Amino acid sequence: MSSPTQAPCAPARTDARAANHDHAADPRFQPDPLFDAAERDAVYRAIHTRRDVRGEFLPDPIPDEVLARVLTAAHHAPSVGFMQPWDFVVVRSREVRAKIHADFLAAHAEAEQMFDEGKRATYRNLKLEGILESPVNICITCDRSRHGPVVIGRTHIGAMDVYSAVCAVQNLWLAARAENLGVGWVSILHPQALREALGIPREIVPIAYLCVGYVRDFHARPELEAAGWLKRMPLPELLHFDAWQGQPDAAGERLIDAIAQTRAPAR
Amino acid sequence: MSSPTQAPCAPARTDARAANHDHAADPRFQPDPLFDAAERDAVYRAIHTRRDVRGEFLPDPIPDEVLARVLTAAHHAPSVGFMQPWDFVVVRSREVRAKIHADFLAAHAEAEQMFDEGKRATYRNLKLEGILESPVNICITCDRSRHGPVVIGRTHIGAMDVYSAVCAVQNLWLAARAENLGVGWVSILHPQALREALGIPREIVPIAYLCVGYVRDFHARPELEAAGWLKRMPLPELLHFDAWQGQPDAAGERLIDAIAQTRAPAR
Repeated sequence: MSSPTQAPCAPARTDARAANHDHAADPRFQPDPLFDAAERDAVYRAIHTRRDVRGEFLPDPIPDEVLARVLTAAHHAPSVGFMQPWDFVVVRSREVRAKIHADFLAAHAEAEQMFDEGKRATYRNLKLEGILESPVNICITCDRSRHGPVVIGRTHIGAMDVYSAVCAVQNLWLAARAENLGVGWVSILHPQALREALGIPREIVPIAYLCVGYVRDFHARPELEAAGWLKRMPLPELLHFDAWQGQPDAAGERLIDAIAQTRAPAR
Repeated sequence: MSSPTQAPCAPARTDARAANHDHAADPRFQPDPLFDAAERDAVYRAIHTRRDVRGEFLPDPIPDEVLARVLTAAHHAPSVGFMQPWDFVVVRSREVRAKIHADFLAAHAEAEQMFDEGKRATYRNLKLEGILESPVNICITCDRSRHGPVVIGRTHIGAMDVYSAVCAVQNLWLAARAENLGVGWVSILHPQALREALGIPREIVPIAYLCVGYVRDFHARPELEAAGWLKRMPLPELLHFDAWQGQPDAAGERLIDAIAQTRAPAR
């Protein structure tokens, strides 16, 4: 793997801090918190080689201990007020998956009609799910009333609980990539059909329907990028400094230069 | 670090598949996709030692190449229809941060009144943000109209673009942990005050306001858990099998047993 850079793991002052650490025996804190460069690069590798898998699933079963680790990772996502609002519906039943697949086909046909004629044929031919080919599907939900109506950190931004459940999705996705498992997020579904197929109560919000399994291959690039549907946007165009309309100051210009030097590991 | 288990990285059939791999020279696919156990464990370490940092920030500057890698990781989050709906407002200005901190104090005082009297004193004394102590704040937003009204995968679940922006938050958070940087998500803010402080246009949704910096310590456990505010829920209680009301079958029981054997690395 090409390392993003050869820079040291943390700047000098932070290293000195770690050496003088007087909290090493304090059980409230992590006794040995520093990541080394190899660990850091492994995390970046997961982030940059994660793909939304649709057409490459193998039917191979997922060992219980692997699925256990992946679900445990999802359960350790950040959550507003430590609310842990998620549930996980593990779907292996072929009959249940067939119901959801049938709803996908219906939604997909509706979606096709929403695109301009020029893009419609391209859209129709995209493989967008692996519901039946993957051995396990997982629906991650959000229970917005868990622990009562007042939640620390959700008092002024009501969607924070939903955001927490999405963080669980991304934890699961990255853990799966590190286990050499592919994940595909299927969102071309009618939420009500998904509720009915899984018996999800009215008050629970389905957040993500995920297909999980070993894969023949991981694509080098996101499939929609490779297909020319949309391009990767240049990150500097998405940066703002101190305000939306702010121009980069000297520090901003240095950051933009550093981004140009950053290579995403993508083997 | 204690490895989650000593199990091999992938099951036998998948290893065989990799050995017989006939796509190694096909540039559409990742030529060397398998993670080894050390890389996998590094990813789990980031997931399990990530904390929501409030009171431990150091003022040390973040090197440009580190911030560049962390932002690049966020930009490589999954996004619905490859929409990349995020922007990043990098806030270093003390004046801007002071405005946002003032709004935090106002929102925090309002929030306190929402809790039952028994919990109010505990709430008041929680340290919930590091806006001024951390050297860099980053606001991640979602541009819902990017690339036009019809987006692949957002045709039936309208919030998918917002979910994509949350995935960028979690990528940034895990990348930061691997760089030995702390991140705190401040959500006790009035969205309108945040918009005004940063000049965010009406049509752009602020998703997360993050404090980023090196830290004195990473807490061993989430602070709200350590403070006894809420407990970590047992993962098996959050699992469902094939349907919300479904009881675990033999495969489900084996998965629950495997979860009990999984130790989260938490050094």
